[in-house]
Amino acid sequence: MTYGRSSPFTDPFHPCYLWLAMPLAAVIPSPNTRVELREVPSPELEPNSALLSVELSEVCGTDVYLQRGLLDGVPYPLVPGHVTVGRLERIRGELFDVNGRRFREGDRVTFLDVHRTCNACWYCLVAKASTRCPARKVYGITYGAEDGPSGGWAEQIYIKPGTRCIRLDTEPALFMAGGCALPTALHATERADIKIGDTVLVLGSGPVGLNTIILSLMRGALRVLCIGAPNSRLDAALGLGASAVLNFQEHNEGETVEWLRSQNGDRLPAITIEATGDPDAVVKSMRYTRDAGRVVIVGQYTDHGPVSSEVKFNPHLDLNKKHLEVRGCWGSDYSHFHSAVEIISDARLCKPWEELQPRLASFGLAEANEALAAVSSGEVLKALIDPARGSHG
Amino acid sequence: MTYGRSSPFTDPFHPCYLWLAMPLAAVIPSPNTRVELREVPSPELEPNSALLSVELSEVCGTDVYLQRGLLDGVPYPLVPGHVTVGRLERIRGELFDVNGRRFREGDRVTFLDVHRTCNACWYCLVAKASTRCPARKVYGITYGAEDGPSGGWAEQIYIKPGTRCIRLDTEPALFMAGGCALPTALHATERADIKIGDTVLVLGSGPVGLNTIILSLMRGALRVLCIGAPNSRLDAALGLGASAVLNFQEHNEGETVEWLRSQNGDRLPAITIEATGDPDAVVKSMRYTRDAGRVVIVGQYTDHGPVSSEVKFNPHLDLNKKHLEVRGCWGSDYSHFHSAVEIISDARLCKPWEELQPRLASFGLAEANEALAAVSSGEVLKALIDPARGSHG
Amino acid sequence: MTYGRSSPFTDPFHPCYLWLAMPLAAVIPSPNTRVELREVPSPELEPNSALLSVELSEVCGTDVYLQRGLLDGVPYPLVPGHVTVGRLERIRGELFDVNGRRFREGDRVTFLDVHRTCNACWYCLVAKASTRCPARKVYGITYGAEDGPSGGWAEQIYIKPGTRCIRLDTEPALFMAGGCALPTALHATERADIKIGDTVLVLGSGPVGLNTIILSLMRGALRVLCIGAPNSRLDAALGLGASAVLNFQEHNEGETVEWLRSQNGDRLPAITIEATGDPDAVVKSMRYTRDAGRVVIVGQYTDHGPVSSEVKFNPHLDLNKKHLEVRGCWGSDYSHFHSAVEIISDARLCKPWEELQPRLASFGLAEANEALAAVSSGEVLKALIDPARGSHG
Amino acid sequence: MTYGRSSPFTDPFHPCYLWLAMPLAAVIPSPNTRVELREVPSPELEPNSALLSVELSEVCGTDVYLQRGLLDGVPYPLVPGHVTVGRLERIRGELFDVNGRRFREGDRVTFLDVHRTCNACWYCLVAKASTRCPARKVYGITYGAEDGPSGGWAEQIYIKPGTRCIRLDTEPALFMAGGCALPTALHATERADIKIGDTVLVLGSGPVGLNTIILSLMRGALRVLCIGAPNSRLDAALGLGASAVLNFQEHNEGETVEWLRSQNGDRLPAITIEATGDPDAVVKSMRYTRDAGRVVIVGQYTDHGPVSSEVKFNPHLDLNKKHLEVRGCWGSDYSHFHSAVEIISDARLCKPWEELQPRLASFGLAEANEALAAVSSGEVLKALIDPARGSHG
Repeated sequence: MTYGRSSPFTDPFHPCYLWLAMPLAAVIPSPNTRVELREVPSPELEPNSALLSVELSEVCGTDVYLQRGLLDGVPYPLVPGHVTVGRLERIRGELFDVNGRRFREGDRVTFLDVHRTCNACWYCLVAKASTRCPARKVYGITYGAEDGPSGGWAEQIYIKPGTRCIRLDTEPALFMAGGCALPTALHATERADIKIGDTVLVLGSGPVGLNTIILSLMRGALRVLCIGAPNSRLDAALGLGASAVLNFQEHNEGETVEWLRSQNGDRLPAITIEATGDPDAVVKSMRYTRDAGRVVIVGQYTDHGPVSSEVKFNPHLDLNKKHLEVRGCWGSDYSHFHSAVEIISDARLCKPWEELQPRLASFGLAEANEALAAVSSGEVLKALIDPARGSHG
Repeated sequence: MTYGRSSPFTDPFHPCYLWLAMPLAAVIPSPNTRVELREVPSPELEPNSALLSVELSEVCGTDVYLQRGLLDGVPYPLVPGHVTVGRLERIRGELFDVNGRRFREGDRVTFLDVHRTCNACWYCLVAKASTRCPARKVYGITYGAEDGPSGGWAEQIYIKPGTRCIRLDTEPALFMAGGCALPTALHATERADIKIGDTVLVLGSGPVGLNTIILSLMRGALRVLCIGAPNSRLDAALGLGASAVLNFQEHNEGETVEWLRSQNGDRLPAITIEATGDPDAVVKSMRYTRDAGRVVIVGQYTDHGPVSSEVKFNPHLDLNKKHLEVRGCWGSDYSHFHSAVEIISDARLCKPWEELQPRLASFGLAEANEALAAVSSGEVLKALIDPARGSHG
Repeated sequence: MTYGRSSPFTDPFHPCYLWLAMPLAAVIPSPNTRVELREVPSPELEPNSALLSVELSEVCGTDVYLQRGLLDGVPYPLVPGHVTVGRLERIRGELFDVNGRRFREGDRVTFLDVHRTCNACWYCLVAKASTRCPARKVYGITYGAEDGPSGGWAEQIYIKPGTRCIRLDTEPALFMAGGCALPTALHATERADIKIGDTVLVLGSGPVGLNTIILSLMRGALRVLCIGAPNSRLDAALGLGASAVLNFQEHNEGETVEWLRSQNGDRLPAITIEATGDPDAVVKSMRYTRDAGRVVIVGQYTDHGPVSSEVKFNPHLDLNKKHLEVRGCWGSDYSHFHSAVEIISDARLCKPWEELQPRLASFGLAEANEALAAVSSGEVLKALIDPARGSHG
Repeated sequence: MTYGRSSPFTDPFHPCYLWLAMPLAAVIPSPNTRVELREVPSPELEPNSALLSVELSEVCGTDVYLQRGLLDGVPYPLVPGHVTVGRLERIRGELFDVNGRRFREGDRVTFLDVHRTCNACWYCLVAKASTRCPARKVYGITYGAEDGPSGGWAEQIYIKPGTRCIRLDTEPALFMAGGCALPTALHATERADIKIGDTVLVLGSGPVGLNTIILSLMRGALRVLCIGAPNSRLDAALGLGASAVLNFQEHNEGETVEWLRSQNGDRLPAITIEATGDPDAVVKSMRYTRDAGRVVIVGQYTDHGPVSSEVKFNPHLDLNKKHLEVRGCWGSDYSHFHSAVEIISDARLCKPWEELQPRLASFGLAEANEALAAVSSGEVLKALIDPARGSHG
């Protein structure tokens, strides 16, 4: 924590300090240290902001990387937890949803974790690529404890002015079965531009991979193949409707190509969506896709450093002669988040997430280290943080 | 040459042999041998085929690779020369252009060098990616001398049934200033999807690179930057309207990034089209493009082997975080060829090719080795083969 | 029937006539006459053609219009029946599917009813709009009895060279539950470019409308609304998963707009697909769609004449200010047909058509007039022609 | 004017009133009244706002309609003038361009006349159709005199917080040769998705039509045809590079179709952009376009009322069978405006507007009625308002 300047959020000698509540939060003090339970001062609300009582937040792969210090630009100490559900406890001024309906205290909402895409810069206004807006901030990742209670692993989170909130009319635990992976996967699936009848290969069987399987089927894929690990997650993939799965640890590239052909009428898939976190999978995604096909790369959110992150490919064979299209996919915007909430709140479309829900495990704030360990080991598909839960709940 | 079966084109003891004319052709007997002048028997015309008297053919970078044996699936001995102009000397049956107008003997035409994309296979009919049709054959590349006079470095070329011919109403030498590079560049530019006002970077200053500069400007690019070599070709790039050029041999990657920013309001180009032949340029094309931009790879037509063709990149930094799109671009189809002929035949649009025309040099059939050497060294932008020209013309 | 020239198919005095089999066919002799049962001479097979024993063909709305003489360019006498399933009874030469697998006598196949899109004209090769190829011919519509047994309402149909056949591995009756409406709806849905989460309005509840509902849901629509008639078909729409339906005969435009808003969070649908046959529905489709939405017109296959076909709209309010996109959609190509067969042959995706199947009724060749009447009155969703069925089956 | 509430801009008894400067403005008091010269109180600047000294504003067709009261939602009395150039006279707080460069007093700028697209509503964030944002306001059209000096026909204009300004490095008079028509035409051309080599038909020869001709050529059209009137504007079209022009008043629909075919190798244009203001032209634009082509409707900005605005068409012949695409195009956003400024500031690309510039005429504030009359009669292509100009300048 930086003590260099006095802040009402962190400095007990600051004149505003005594007026503020002190919600509990799970904090990563600095890279590679254990999560600690701390009181984080609640801010004085700015006009048109709110305080949200957290019901559920989540622990995803990015949080594991955050704990290891593998992301750039993270202001430790950090309260992690980006996608979060809760109730608006206190509103100062007015908050509206995108349809112009005003929020009331007590409403259950979730919010786009991405904040401050500025709608004023060249990237926002000319390139129309708001996920590359330089002013972009993310709750629980690039907002730190110094910015107030800005992560979901806490009793309360401060909803800054301009945060995009949306009512949640379904059960928080069902929504969190999608969690942050769902808007990410929606963006990737949109960028994959799947046609009815296409065969889609999903590389990776973590939350983003599984959500991508769901959405590829929802887009009308004839069949979805999944290559991942461990077997428990591949079972989840089959349960969601994947036609066939392969454990990548047990087969080399040549065998995998044979397997893909055998599953798809002797032809490689039209579309591959890479959602693994492993740089090598990027080159494989090109080799596993048919000529004139399309590849979406959505699993490379972390730089593993100059040595381990670099991978080799043959531009003639892997790209140019194949007439292949490869699309990086970064972040997501409000349209994906809005759609995520609508889909998972729909009685018909929510079925696959009901299927996933039992694979999640809940942890109290005091169990954040256990939650991280469970996610890191792959023992659970995803961990949820439930601040109402005691340490031995 | 395969002597296994008797052919009227190559076997003097074949019963039809004596009936056929014997046009002269420049032949690559086998990889890494010198081009030889030979008589190649003219075929008996099949129904709805023709014999074309060659006026001009060309020597492009692919021909240099063909002479070195660097392309797969080439049936030596080979008469090179894919894009070719001439007059229909003899027609058997009926030939029509795409508008249903019948060709007459004496008409000046050119033809799509790609033949037999089958319109019957999964790639042609379902994927709609005819440049990946497995039945695809290319005059002067995958048709060999065994198939009859099927390359343009010859007095005559056999126009097989189903070959797409188009009338040429402009001067052959002007058309050849575009030559095979023009439809290739049209396909690449189409795939680049340039918007009016975009800044485009072209990597490479050979024929495809220079045609890409012309077409990027024609598509409304605000500015086109070119990185290539040698300086004489960069001068050509400036003459065509490039805003600024850089010799890649004199600057490392970091300096190049600085230069690009300095040329474009401190921002990297929106679109990069790679047309170099050098695998390393593929990774650079990604690094030289702005976030959320687009890269087209059209310069990797040859496999340089497992060692020298492989290049390293960082999928997180170079692709995923940049939200970049990378599109391989293979071959071209009749739509590009048709458009090429229309553009270069238009009094207004042809200007840039008039600019290029003086940079071409003509050679007779007996000078094919000199022509290859001139292209290989970069001494000329492109060499033309003019069968009517004597060896010391 | 034209008696002007002698044909082995129709002229008993033609020298080939006696050699040919005489399959039974249901024939529309001329517009507005009753269908008659006739013997139609089977042709001598050209190389790489075949004779198909018909198992099932269909009676769709187009056939009703054909009987009334409402389509241009139809060569009466006509054997109707475009989409058809059967077994290859006799093959002369070789027939292959798009994957290069050779067909054998006895194989069960269906085939694209569109034939002879030429792959040689400007529309096929430059505009890449093969459904507008001037050489295009359709079995059962623009091929007449004079062309041999070229419609499916017959014991046999002649599969001309170049016809695109595909193996059918599912039950013919299930495939026919999609029938000709399925590739048409696939084309329309593709052109609608539905995003996951969109609300889609389908105007029309005939076969194309119902198939469009299925496919819109398969593409990931959040909800599909249907406006049509009669109520039995609207029930079918609900059974397929439509969120809500409205009988267009019972509500005016203003009420309908209110209803649409009430079903979709006070917003008009993002996408409307018109599949009605009624010109007025085209203007309504624009008014029922939200600003910046998209409309696909696939229901206007017939010209009702200068008076009744013309409709009025306000370009300012209905189109320009709405920033609306309106896309006509004509015919379908092999890609749609191929996909149709793959989808309906898939154990998971075929479910909705299993739902539709009981709404079809089968008729023998001798009952073709009854079949037309049943389709015309809307009493059945679609009639099938089963040549093996006796007149009182 | 609304006197219901007291405003510092209009109420001399308001406490702030005396502190404000009183710039002169040309005001339309109410529909169908003559423009009057008035003093409009200058506002007290809000934080991060500015006052701009107007150098040039313009009189376009919309202003003629505004004077006649033909647009909805216009708050008279109105200071017209949407696209405007001037110098920042006074800045309160900080103003930045999209590249983050801070503006200084004295800078010459122009600004996007569209203001307050909210980036918070469903249209902005989910549909990504900001030109349909309900909060959208336009300087000189939907901001009235009540909102302060918010139109360009004035000595000063108030740059409200959040207005998108951009530096202008070229001559104001050259920029105004594009004026408001240029971003509109850029949006239309973008939506037309012209390919290199396409033939484009532009209907209309007013400012939007002429700018569309320029941009279609800039996008690589093989030829651009223009149908409009009067002949002086058609001459301008030819001067800009149109291949051929036709006066619509002298030819009926059938003759026009013949003329189009004769100009384009017996084929109708691939793309038509309608920019006329005449509802009938919308149907013609469909009939003048080839099958599988595209039509953009950008000329229907005004509702002429229920009778005169309605037009008739045949959905079968004009839309569905043609497999035609028709795209409404409403307004423009900052990306178009930014690109407009960059293009017209470029020494190479600005040439066509230099060609147009002599066809503009300048008027002083006191001559606004004469300016409107000159635009309305078509006597000038466009009128400019130059506040520095005396009434007899």
